[in-house]
Amino acid sequence: MNLNSLSKIRAQAPLVHNITNYVVMNNTANALLAIGASPVMAHSIHEVEAMVQLSQALVINIGTLSDAWIESMALAAQTAARLNIPIVLDPVGCGATEYRTRTALKLLRTARLSVIRGNASEIQALAYGSGNTKGVDSIHTPQDAFDAARELAQTYGCVVSVSGPVDLVVCCDRAAHISNGHPLMTRVTGMGCTSSALTGAFLAVEPDIFNAACLTMVVMGVAGELAAKIAVGPGSFQMHFLDVLHGINESDILQRAQVTWS
Amino acid sequence: MNLNSLSKIRAQAPLVHNITNYVVMNNTANALLAIGASPVMAHSIHEVEAMVQLSQALVINIGTLSDAWIESMALAAQTAARLNIPIVLDPVGCGATEYRTRTALKLLRTARLSVIRGNASEIQALAYGSGNTKGVDSIHTPQDAFDAARELAQTYGCVVSVSGPVDLVVCCDRAAHISNGHPLMTRVTGMGCTSSALTGAFLAVEPDIFNAACLTMVVMGVAGELAAKIAVGPGSFQMHFLDVLHGINESDILQRAQVTWS
Amino acid sequence: MNLNSLSKIRAQAPLVHNITNYVVMNNTANALLAIGASPVMAHSIHEVEAMVQLSQALVINIGTLSDAWIESMALAAQTAARLNIPIVLDPVGCGATEYRTRTALKLLRTARLSVIRGNASEIQALAYGSGNTKGVDSIHTPQDAFDAARELAQTYGCVVSVSGPVDLVVCCDRAAHISNGHPLMTRVTGMGCTSSALTGAFLAVEPDIFNAACLTMVVMGVAGELAAKIAVGPGSFQMHFLDVLHGINESDILQRAQVTWS
Repeated sequence: MNLNSLSKIRAQAPLVHNITNYVVMNNTANALLAIGASPVMAHSIHEVEAMVQLSQALVINIGTLSDAWIESMALAAQTAARLNIPIVLDPVGCGATEYRTRTALKLLRTARLSVIRGNASEIQALAYGSGNTKGVDSIHTPQDAFDAARELAQTYGCVVSVSGPVDLVVCCDRAAHISNGHPLMTRVTGMGCTSSALTGAFLAVEPDIFNAACLTMVVMGVAGELAAKIAVGPGSFQMHFLDVLHGINESDILQRAQVTWS
Repeated sequence: MNLNSLSKIRAQAPLVHNITNYVVMNNTANALLAIGASPVMAHSIHEVEAMVQLSQALVINIGTLSDAWIESMALAAQTAARLNIPIVLDPVGCGATEYRTRTALKLLRTARLSVIRGNASEIQALAYGSGNTKGVDSIHTPQDAFDAARELAQTYGCVVSVSGPVDLVVCCDRAAHISNGHPLMTRVTGMGCTSSALTGAFLAVEPDIFNAACLTMVVMGVAGELAAKIAVGPGSFQMHFLDVLHGINESDILQRAQVTWS
Repeated sequence: MNLNSLSKIRAQAPLVHNITNYVVMNNTANALLAIGASPVMAHSIHEVEAMVQLSQALVINIGTLSDAWIESMALAAQTAARLNIPIVLDPVGCGATEYRTRTALKLLRTARLSVIRGNASEIQALAYGSGNTKGVDSIHTPQDAFDAARELAQTYGCVVSVSGPVDLVVCCDRAAHISNGHPLMTRVTGMGCTSSALTGAFLAVEPDIFNAACLTMVVMGVAGELAAKIAVGPGSFQMHFLDVLHGINESDILQRAQVTWS
């Protein structure tokens, strides 16, 4: 992993364009600011092309969909692909409803993405269609998640980043298992969405997509561990997490990273 | 009150589907996660039916309305009613504008609700139409609020939960006055909306609707008191409130609950 | 500056109607509550007229635009102007996309505003059209910002409030430079939007528009300094900022205000 991406983000403050869900917009923007990037949110069909052109990364998150937003997401993705701007897709709730699965698949086919970042259920639903999951709480084995991620990576030529107790980052010929993180991360809304947004920030400064995706999950996990050490519960965890992201350095990451490459 | 609803929420992590306002989505999701439930937000007409089917409760909050959302709220309510999934309505700002009053009444007539949860002004506007209030700051006597709540409970066959300095929970033949809480709760946006969301979580595990509504207001009030003890102002209050919700147990509630039944 | 506006806000709790962006709605509402005002958010074309009529100030923020919202913003502005209710416009991202610049100019021409509150790039784009900026990160000299602000103030007969390392408040014949604030304010999303919302609260109680705009920026800056003294990073800063706003008094402001009048 090229740890100096972190200082590159802080030096360059890349603009990350987010078309994301209403629930996490504030957290997403704050996490991007805390790590040193510059967030922008814009979803109107009349301005997404212009905004993508100013940006160094595009993050699309389908957490609270409606038809007008889907149209804008597709146009933004096409624009970013044309300009070689890296795209992250967070298929929130994919598999829970047909509408979300269909939308995520449509976006996958609209433009070549750099990274798909979701949880195991979402990645499975995306890989195998909507038939194989039962809502948002489906439990899969690590091997199931790996197989689905590899399938997606091969079909769409992208990197797949799967969050869970052990995070998994997969591309066609490489994989990493990342054991950092803390259970409190599941008690705060939008930590997955934050991972997706930060993946955009790392992609903006790091040309190796697989490395950018891995480093993001390591930074998320290490920041989660450091925040959990001083948190009383999910409220204070959320606050400390932003403080930690703002102050984290390469030595924190080196000391705590738990990555297995394969 | 059946205090073991709290441990049931934590054991079962019921999925609570929220169609709520933009202002509080993040808080709502975090409060549900903190208490142990599993929140989901979805508002498109193309997916609310599917999402309701996965859920154990539906919470509709009219705080930031538009026509497309109203259509989805009605469809979600119909779906939940058909499937016997409990529904909570939070008529935010009812009485402040005709649009909100009309929408809340429409939803009341669309499907049988389990609980209406609002403040005294909203409950009065809902009970007597839009003619009797003067904006959002109208002051009513406790008796006014009780009469309006009983009227609504009788007309619509539901439980009415009215937040205020003393909370009031009313159904056709029972009532409870709950004196827990703290003034800082009025200095943080969305505490009422949080009550509505948590009412959904308690309804998901507790078949006695009146008890579920009472217990929710007791938990809110006790958590507010505990958070206020360590808060400096509304910013830290909001954070501590989530920590307290996460850690609260039956003994905290038993020790502090101030309920008068009638 | 008439410092007793602060106690007037706390005594009168003016209703401030916000039509603002999704990212900051929660912060905006909480900042208004913390200072003692009463926030309301409503954006449907069917209720903005009614809501404006109940309000003592209207704040329009174009941070996450779409066509339906623009229509409501224009109607709300017309209604407020007709009723002599003060209007604040926050032209977020003006100059970054043609859509935002056009919308801000449209609103400026729709109704006489009391205050335009933006950063230097936005104010320049608004003063000179969309041709002179390069995205959201353009850097301007203080003199550039002053000239653009004066130009807008003269053209539209309003006060222009420009946030930056040194804040600038300009009307046709007066100007103030305010050197309060802290760099952490740029690492939390929506601090500018909070300034705009609080400007609305001060306008609701203070007839001198220039003074209201100046006092807002002083209060923001002083609160930022006090919060930064106890913050570890942007997460805790955001929390302390709300606590400080809630507790701030005239003596804090007098002791720390750094204003140069010209």
